[in-house]
Amino acid sequence: MSDRGNGVTAAAGFRASGIHCGLRREHADLALVVSDRPAVAAAVFTTNRVQAAPVTESKTRLAASGGRARAIMVNAGNANACTGERGDRAARQTVEETARLLGLPPDEVLVASTGVIGQQLAVDKILAALPHSVDELSVEGGDAAARAILTTDTFAKQSLRRVVEPEGSYTVGGMAKGSGMIHPDLATTLAFVTTDAQVEPEVLQRALETAVDQSFHRVTIDGDTSTNDMVAVLANGASGIHVGGGPRREDFERTLTTVLVDLARDVARDGEGASRLITVRVTGGASDADALAVARVISSSLLVRTAVYGADANWGRIVAAAGRSGVAVEPERMTVRLNGLAVLEPGFVSAFSEEEARDRLSADDVELGLDLGQGDGEAETWTCDLTEGYIEINAHYRT
Amino acid sequence: MSDRGNGVTAAAGFRASGIHCGLRREHADLALVVSDRPAVAAAVFTTNRVQAAPVTESKTRLAASGGRARAIMVNAGNANACTGERGDRAARQTVEETARLLGLPPDEVLVASTGVIGQQLAVDKILAALPHSVDELSVEGGDAAARAILTTDTFAKQSLRRVVEPEGSYTVGGMAKGSGMIHPDLATTLAFVTTDAQVEPEVLQRALETAVDQSFHRVTIDGDTSTNDMVAVLANGASGIHVGGGPRREDFERTLTTVLVDLARDVARDGEGASRLITVRVTGGASDADALAVARVISSSLLVRTAVYGADANWGRIVAAAGRSGVAVEPERMTVRLNGLAVLEPGFVSAFSEEEARDRLSADDVELGLDLGQGDGEAETWTCDLTEGYIEINAHYRT
Repeated sequence: MSDRGNGVTAAAGFRASGIHCGLRREHADLALVVSDRPAVAAAVFTTNRVQAAPVTESKTRLAASGGRARAIMVNAGNANACTGERGDRAARQTVEETARLLGLPPDEVLVASTGVIGQQLAVDKILAALPHSVDELSVEGGDAAARAILTTDTFAKQSLRRVVEPEGSYTVGGMAKGSGMIHPDLATTLAFVTTDAQVEPEVLQRALETAVDQSFHRVTIDGDTSTNDMVAVLANGASGIHVGGGPRREDFERTLTTVLVDLARDVARDGEGASRLITVRVTGGASDADALAVARVISSSLLVRTAVYGADANWGRIVAAAGRSGVAVEPERMTVRLNGLAVLEPGFVSAFSEEEARDRLSADDVELGLDLGQGDGEAETWTCDLTEGYIEINAHYRT
Repeated sequence: MSDRGNGVTAAAGFRASGIHCGLRREHADLALVVSDRPAVAAAVFTTNRVQAAPVTESKTRLAASGGRARAIMVNAGNANACTGERGDRAARQTVEETARLLGLPPDEVLVASTGVIGQQLAVDKILAALPHSVDELSVEGGDAAARAILTTDTFAKQSLRRVVEPEGSYTVGGMAKGSGMIHPDLATTLAFVTTDAQVEPEVLQRALETAVDQSFHRVTIDGDTSTNDMVAVLANGASGIHVGGGPRREDFERTLTTVLVDLARDVARDGEGASRLITVRVTGGASDADALAVARVISSSLLVRTAVYGADANWGRIVAAAGRSGVAVEPERMTVRLNGLAVLEPGFVSAFSEEEARDRLSADDVELGLDLGQGDGEAETWTCDLTEGYIEINAHYRT
């Protein structure tokens, strides 16, 4: 399966391409993913009230097709958001032209954009490049597609899992982009998954929502929510394996979740300017919901994220963040562990080696563990450290 | 009145001092404010579930005295938070010793701390220095006190107003510290105000809550809420002017609000690493509450704050932040002005000189104006730009 790459072309019956159409100066900026046979589609979209033209367009198409799609076209370099009717028209034109070139009904084409908000999309560049994009489609094209959807990301994000059943196996593969304007609850990011399992539209939509809740909804980079976020999955049944109900459905949901968690963690690891992936693991909550609420606040805290950047065992910031979560935490019951090293124990006992703590925090992967000492609830969220790099990237992003 | 300084000793009957007791290496770190006569007191405290020992101590004292206090002792360099019973005892000791030295009932002494969380307070240093702190009390001591409460601040923050009535005048003067862990709704900061007006406890408490809502609750630096926040006001009646009800009460509330707004804006201007004060002014909301909700999200956005740092007219980030506020905004109705220059007009019309926009954003004071085009609601919040300086300060704050 290795010649099919590790992402959206890993599953049977999918081809993809990633080319340069000129929206970005030198970087590939136009990705296309196509199923060779009819496919079921599901998607979740940004909850921002300001929705980019491609978001509206894709929602409309997906509703019109009744949850079917065979192609996804993605451009980087321009978000086509806050662009008014002209932007809506541009999104529609790209869908129609993609459909025409592929011989598909337009309602079976989804579109996504990422980049600067508020500038008109140079739609002619996309329209001119689409024939080449179609020519380039191949079963090895997943890697190129994964590169073509990036903006400020420093590496391509792909994930792949195979599920073996008695009569054969099916594959779930995906790609995602980061790496700013990322926050849970409200937002997702751009991520696209393909599978050769056979799944009904409702089952696919439910599985996607479950998987996104466990993955992208638990990543925060900077607290901002994009106008363009979208996670979509296409299932074309090419494996011949049918995912109905029961254990098979659970297996499928778990597999989809694993792929999205992989991608979500990579998005956190590659957050703008990041030097470290931070996993916030809260245990001992009165409920999972409590633990999640606390974990989200900790992973959103600039003070926690800068302390990790400085490898500074400033556990007080973790406790203080938990204190403003709205959860009825009891600080005197808390245990804080930095990559396993206990720096705070119940009753405000804090005795540890600063040197050892600095070593633990200097790893590429840092787990901030907080045990609330109240029950069995637990949750995990992901973010990255906050560095000067984030400032540099975002102070002059547009220009 | 100039020899009485521009802060907490400007009102008649107050003395203050600011000395070095050794909690910080070279910087003054112990402030004392005392009224020479009985005084009414009001305070608001952090809403963080994790509350520092001095917060608990001051709440208890204020309740026991029925809203009276004659002294406030503040240390910088250590927050005395997450310090358990030993920390509680330390706060209590400092109150008792201050009371003893001043010949006051302990319930008429308030205490506040600011600095690192989770380290035991070197209370002996404070106890040893308190006699000197009392000796240094003077009517010119307001400036020294204002300097002694600072942590990462780069300048002392004071404000002063005088109200003239037919039978004389009264003064309201205050001081505050910043400059991290600052966020509205939850937090305030450390701020202390004195007045020689005569005010009843309930009137003073209500006036303070109103004033804080219009000032410190509208500042955000980094979204984090301190465990130590406290705004307190002492009113000693030395001016002979009685603030009862009606217009006088309104005048007093307005004056107190003005003083706290001055201080709050200075806190934003001096936010950690800040190069610019940002005023977010939202108009045209369906209600004031809507406008405030939108303004708060914009002023919390890292992407907006980094764009201002880069003097980049990235109005899309302002619109996107408004879109995730939970308010039913309509992006096509929005107008965005950067220090008066319209960069977005209704219907997504955007035509402006990038050079001119860059000039406007390069001022020390930047107003981001967003008109929602929906009604008459308006609100203003304050923050600062987000720079590499914030990262530098906070990556190694403890060490």
